[in-house]
Amino acid sequence: MLLPLLEIDHPLVQAPMAGISTPAMAAAVASAGALGSIGVGATDAAGARKMIAAFREQSKRSLNVNVFCHAPAKADEARQARWIERLRPEFAQQSATPPAKLTEIYRSFLVDDDMLAAFVAERPKVVSFHFGIPSTDRVRALRDAGIVVLGSATSLAEARRLVDGGAQAVVAQGYEAGGHRGMFDPDAADDRLGTFALTRILARELPVPVIAAGGIMDGAGISAALRLGAAAAQLGTAFVLCPESAADEGYRRAMTSDAAHHTVMTRAISGRPARCLANRFTGWAATNAVSDAEIPDYPIAYDLGKALHAAGKAAAGKDFGFGAQWAGQGAPLARSLPAAEMVAKLVAET
Amino acid sequence: MLLPLLEIDHPLVQAPMAGISTPAMAAAVASAGALGSIGVGATDAAGARKMIAAFREQSKRSLNVNVFCHAPAKADEARQARWIERLRPEFAQQSATPPAKLTEIYRSFLVDDDMLAAFVAERPKVVSFHFGIPSTDRVRALRDAGIVVLGSATSLAEARRLVDGGAQAVVAQGYEAGGHRGMFDPDAADDRLGTFALTRILARELPVPVIAAGGIMDGAGISAALRLGAAAAQLGTAFVLCPESAADEGYRRAMTSDAAHHTVMTRAISGRPARCLANRFTGWAATNAVSDAEIPDYPIAYDLGKALHAAGKAAAGKDFGFGAQWAGQGAPLARSLPAAEMVAKLVAET
Repeated sequence: MLLPLLEIDHPLVQAPMAGISTPAMAAAVASAGALGSIGVGATDAAGARKMIAAFREQSKRSLNVNVFCHAPAKADEARQARWIERLRPEFAQQSATPPAKLTEIYRSFLVDDDMLAAFVAERPKVVSFHFGIPSTDRVRALRDAGIVVLGSATSLAEARRLVDGGAQAVVAQGYEAGGHRGMFDPDAADDRLGTFALTRILARELPVPVIAAGGIMDGAGISAALRLGAAAAQLGTAFVLCPESAADEGYRRAMTSDAAHHTVMTRAISGRPARCLANRFTGWAATNAVSDAEIPDYPIAYDLGKALHAAGKAAAGKDFGFGAQWAGQGAPLARSLPAAEMVAKLVAET
Repeated sequence: MLLPLLEIDHPLVQAPMAGISTPAMAAAVASAGALGSIGVGATDAAGARKMIAAFREQSKRSLNVNVFCHAPAKADEARQARWIERLRPEFAQQSATPPAKLTEIYRSFLVDDDMLAAFVAERPKVVSFHFGIPSTDRVRALRDAGIVVLGSATSLAEARRLVDGGAQAVVAQGYEAGGHRGMFDPDAADDRLGTFALTRILARELPVPVIAAGGIMDGAGISAALRLGAAAAQLGTAFVLCPESAADEGYRRAMTSDAAHHTVMTRAISGRPARCLANRFTGWAATNAVSDAEIPDYPIAYDLGKALHAAGKAAAGKDFGFGAQWAGQGAPLARSLPAAEMVAKLVAET
C-alpha cells in the first residue's frame, strides 16, 4: 500500500536531513529503489527549486521534499541579547565576536506561500512535514497537485492531528532519532516515546501506514520495524557518512569516535530539541545548566549556533565542536558507503 | 543457545517486578514454557525462600530470582529530614503525618550474605541482577551451584561489565522500560538508549545472548526484538494487569487510563530513576521542580514514598496517586489476561 503510493521498490526512506542530505544522495537512493529525500526547510523557494532540479538531473524516481512546519518564531530582543552575551566567551575562545543581532534565518512552511507555489509547480512525488502540519487548504493544494503528503509524529496525539490534517502516512519518530525532534510544541511535556513503543502504538491505532524512525541502522532494524507493524523504515544517521553527505570532516570524525555512544537531546544549538553527538556545544550547555527559557525561539537561536560553529571552524585550532552534529542513538553502527551501495546493502540485509 | 541454557521453550521472560509479580504469576508463566520471575530485592533471605517454595509448589519449570545490586545507601540524616519536610504537606492532605525517620528498608545483594546462602541452598534455575553485579566470588558461588546468572544493562559499558563479571546473558533494558532503570550509577550521565538502538548495539557487540526489554507488549514486539538480534524478549508491563499480579486497584485503573500514554522517569518515589505512570506523585515532583540532590539515596527515599502511598490509600478519599505505578511506554497496549493465557497468546502472536 505504501510502496505503490510512494512508487518505490523497498520499504526504506532516506531521511531528509537539511544541511546534510544532498540532491546527489537523494538521487542515488531513489535510483536504487528507495525514497530519496531532501530537506528544504533551511532554504527558500528558489533554493528548493534548484535542489529539486539537481535531483531530477540525476534520477527519475521518487523524491521526498521535507519542510519545517513550526510555529513562526517570536522575536524577543532582550532574550536574544542575553543569549548572545551568554555565548560571547565561547566566541572569544575562537578569537571571534558574536553577531550583534540574531534573525529568523528561515521561514516556516506554515506561512511560506512561495514554497507552496514552488511545490505545486514542481510536483515532487512526496512532500513531508516536520514540527507540525500546515492548514487544510495548503495540504489540499499539495494533494490536488498529485503530491503524496507525509507528516512526522512523536506521539499518538500528534499522529492523529496529522491524519486529520490530510497526511497519507505518518513517520513515527522515536526518541532515539537524530536531529530535530518533530514534536509540534517544543514547550509541551514530552513523553519521549522510543521507536519500539511509538511504532507499535501508531501501527495499532492509525488508519494510515506508519514509517518507523529512530535508531534504525541496518537490515535487522528495518526488519524489526516491519515486524512492529511499520510499512517502511526511515534511516538518517545511517546515511551521514556516505560520500554524498554534506557532513564536514569534524562531523564525520565525531561520528566514528566515542561521541557516537553518547548522543544528547539539546535545545541550545538551534532553539528546538535535537539529538546531537556529545560535543563541545552540548557539553557547554550541560556544564552551564542552560535552561530552555534562556534560549531564543527556533530558528533564531540557530543563527547564533551556526555563527559559533563557523567561528570554530575558521579559528586557528579548527574547532568542529560547535557543529550541529545531529545523530541518532544508533550512531555507533553507522557505516561509510556510497548511498546506492548503502541501499543495496540494507535491502539485502532485510 | 539461551533457551536450552534457561531450560525454557519460548524466547520470553516475564520481568521480575518486585512487589507486583508473585510466585503464582511466575509459576503460571514457567509452566507455560517461558521464564517466570520473582523479585526478592525488597525482602530478606527468609522471605525469598518462602517465595521460591511457593513457586515450587506450583511449577517444576525454570524460575528466575532477581535481586538489587545497588551500592548500599549512604544515610544523610539532614537530607532525609529535609525530604520528610518537603513531603509533609502531601501527608497532611491525606490527614496523615510522615514518619519521623527514614531507614534503608532493604539491603543490597552486594552485601547480603544470607541471601547468597539461600540461593546456593535453594538453587533456582536463574538469578538475575539489577543495578549492578556482585563481586566475582559471589557470582562464582552462584554459578558453582549450577545457577544461570543474568544481568541488566542500559548501555554497552554496563553490559561489558556484566559479561566480564560472569553474566551468561544480558538484559538490554531500553529507556522505554517500566520500573527501575537498571543503570549502575544513578548519578552518572544517562544516554537514555532506547530498546531499538540498545538491543541492536548489544547484540552486535556482546559475546553472550541478549534479552531485549522495554516497550515490548505483544508477539509483534517479541518478533521485532528477535530480528534485532535478541535471543529473547523480557516483558513486564504486559503482565501488570494479570490476575496473578499484586497490582492494587488504583494501579490497575491508572494502567487503563490516559496516564498509560504519559509515563514519567522519576527519582522522587524511590530515590532511583524509575518509569511510572503519570500520577499525583510524578506531578508533584514536576510541579515542585524536585532536584536529584534533594532526594535521599535509594531505597531510603522509598521508605517515605511507600509511607505516603499507604497514607493516601488509607485516607477517606482512597487516593492511589502516590503509588509506585511502574509502567513502560507500551502501557497503552497492556491486556488483562491470566498469565498462562498471556504466554500462550504472546507465543501464538510471535
